[in-house]
Amino acid sequence: MKAAMFVEPGRMQTTEVPMPVIEKPTDAIIRILRACVCGSDLWWYRGISKREHGSLAGHEAIGVVQEVGPEVTAVRPGDFVVVPFTHGCGRCAACRAGFDGNCMNQEPGGNAGYQAEYLRFASADWSLVRIPGKPSDYSDERLNSLLALSDVMATGYHAAVSAEVKTGDTTVVMGDGAVGLCGIISARSLGAERIIAMSRHDDRQRMACEFGATDIVAERGDQAVERVMELTGGSGADSVLECVGTEQSTITALKVGRPGSIVGRVGVPQNSELNTTELFWRNIGLRGGIASVTTYDKNVLLDAVLDGRIEPGRVFTKRFDLDHIQQAYEAMDEREAIKSLIVVAEA
Amino acid sequence: MKAAMFVEPGRMQTTEVPMPVIEKPTDAIIRILRACVCGSDLWWYRGISKREHGSLAGHEAIGVVQEVGPEVTAVRPGDFVVVPFTHGCGRCAACRAGFDGNCMNQEPGGNAGYQAEYLRFASADWSLVRIPGKPSDYSDERLNSLLALSDVMATGYHAAVSAEVKTGDTTVVMGDGAVGLCGIISARSLGAERIIAMSRHDDRQRMACEFGATDIVAERGDQAVERVMELTGGSGADSVLECVGTEQSTITALKVGRPGSIVGRVGVPQNSELNTTELFWRNIGLRGGIASVTTYDKNVLLDAVLDGRIEPGRVFTKRFDLDHIQQAYEAMDEREAIKSLIVVAEA
Repeated sequence: MKAAMFVEPGRMQTTEVPMPVIEKPTDAIIRILRACVCGSDLWWYRGISKREHGSLAGHEAIGVVQEVGPEVTAVRPGDFVVVPFTHGCGRCAACRAGFDGNCMNQEPGGNAGYQAEYLRFASADWSLVRIPGKPSDYSDERLNSLLALSDVMATGYHAAVSAEVKTGDTTVVMGDGAVGLCGIISARSLGAERIIAMSRHDDRQRMACEFGATDIVAERGDQAVERVMELTGGSGADSVLECVGTEQSTITALKVGRPGSIVGRVGVPQNSELNTTELFWRNIGLRGGIASVTTYDKNVLLDAVLDGRIEPGRVFTKRFDLDHIQQAYEAMDEREAIKSLIVVAEA
Repeated sequence: MKAAMFVEPGRMQTTEVPMPVIEKPTDAIIRILRACVCGSDLWWYRGISKREHGSLAGHEAIGVVQEVGPEVTAVRPGDFVVVPFTHGCGRCAACRAGFDGNCMNQEPGGNAGYQAEYLRFASADWSLVRIPGKPSDYSDERLNSLLALSDVMATGYHAAVSAEVKTGDTTVVMGDGAVGLCGIISARSLGAERIIAMSRHDDRQRMACEFGATDIVAERGDQAVERVMELTGGSGADSVLECVGTEQSTITALKVGRPGSIVGRVGVPQNSELNTTELFWRNIGLRGGIASVTTYDKNVLLDAVLDGRIEPGRVFTKRFDLDHIQQAYEAMDEREAIKSLIVVAEA
């Protein structure tokens, strides 16, 4: 079967690899229909973080269950599913508390190889999210929105949930990548009245506004803080979503909120040490981390996509097939695509 | 009038100072009945933090309104009041959001001089908390519990609210000082089922259990983390209250929670830089800061004291008068008292 392989920084390749097989009774084999490239993939694609050369890539997909291990009973061969990057067991303290991204029983390193024709998926029973009907029942656009439920939409939603966005809030969203844009969708669906999007790219500003942003701030750093203070009458925002992860973005996020506000962050942090004493004196909270994909999909996001209330699939602005994996990464790397879709097989 | 003055580290003195007067139309003059010594006072008493020599001290009291400025209409001369260490205006974005400890209109340096016969209190209109009836209506014990509402009880409650303690939680409380003990009262009243108190002093362990602690952990650092993990079947706690502020206590607090838990902290932080990337990967939240004294008192704590549901006044284990202010500080410094009460005038 074909799979996307990381050759070296800046170079991806489609290669032939053996078909995956069931290794544990809790595994499933998924026939992938659509996959995509994540903003976090760019860290190793650009050589900023390390990744083993020759390793398979991708951690977002939708597909059809091909085969299940003997302990998998919640899904069956033929089921159409969202394939999350997370692998919650559904039973441990983290999963029960709604933090399946931190499942205490997950297999290390299990979330790679989704940019491929087939995938071995661990802890399949609870974490796969069944989609009603069959793939051919859905429009091209709806399939993309379902694909977004495997990571990017759930991650944007985690930022908003972590920031505790509530009805009537003025919310700042840091980052205009696909996650930030899904953060805007999420803030809106949680009731934010005013959404200030930090964005400096025309196409993304436009999409931000279509998703519900009411104000755009193109400045960065302290100038961005000043701008938010102007827009909020000197008070600061009620809630803040940090969807970038750089030091500058995190520090800005921690400055734009009013006392008592929470920064919900999902951008993988690039800096470690933070002066948290300043946060104490202003009662600023810091939460967030790995999204609870299965929890959010099953509880709210799948229904929202099926009802057409949210259309996160619109973040896919360029389409590729598995044979053009290099171009899919390049388009993201060069900001030609907000997010690159990879159509692996026709629905 | 008499007031407690900070002479130099380790030395307090009762001194004669001029009677305070109304300086702003929003001021009130309070005749103090009871005041007390705060754990945070020990930082400068011990010379660890700086304080101006010759400055007046204390930031917790109950008393009777003596005089009000022309813009103060919510309280009148003769009213019996809790005198918070905070000075919320009740109108700014912080106050409206329930964070009056960070009121955006507060007078800098306004919270000192409560260990005295009289006090000029700024922003009196909204922030003073009226107590029904007159001081002589209350028992000695009840007066102490009302005094606790000026800081320590509200601060413990802020830790629990910031940690988002909810029904059924297993909650860890770091710190067995008066604030930690009030944190235990608060966790219990917010529905925690199991409360693990970190305490290594007999008298405080006993009081912790009387207030609702179900388990005591005397270990510190990584041994304490291990102990909590044993007690929670390897999962970690659902919520964590940090009522100390030292680096060791904060780091321990951030390690004892399960994924998704929040550390609600009220201990004034003694360290600044924290590695928050580890928090990201475990979805651990960090919140807290200055308590919302007036908000909590008016919404829930005053009623809880008047109904006898909570008895935070029990943290006052030694009693002094204003002429023995040195002894009041010494008793706290030497851990002979959990908290030193100062009876300024008879009710």
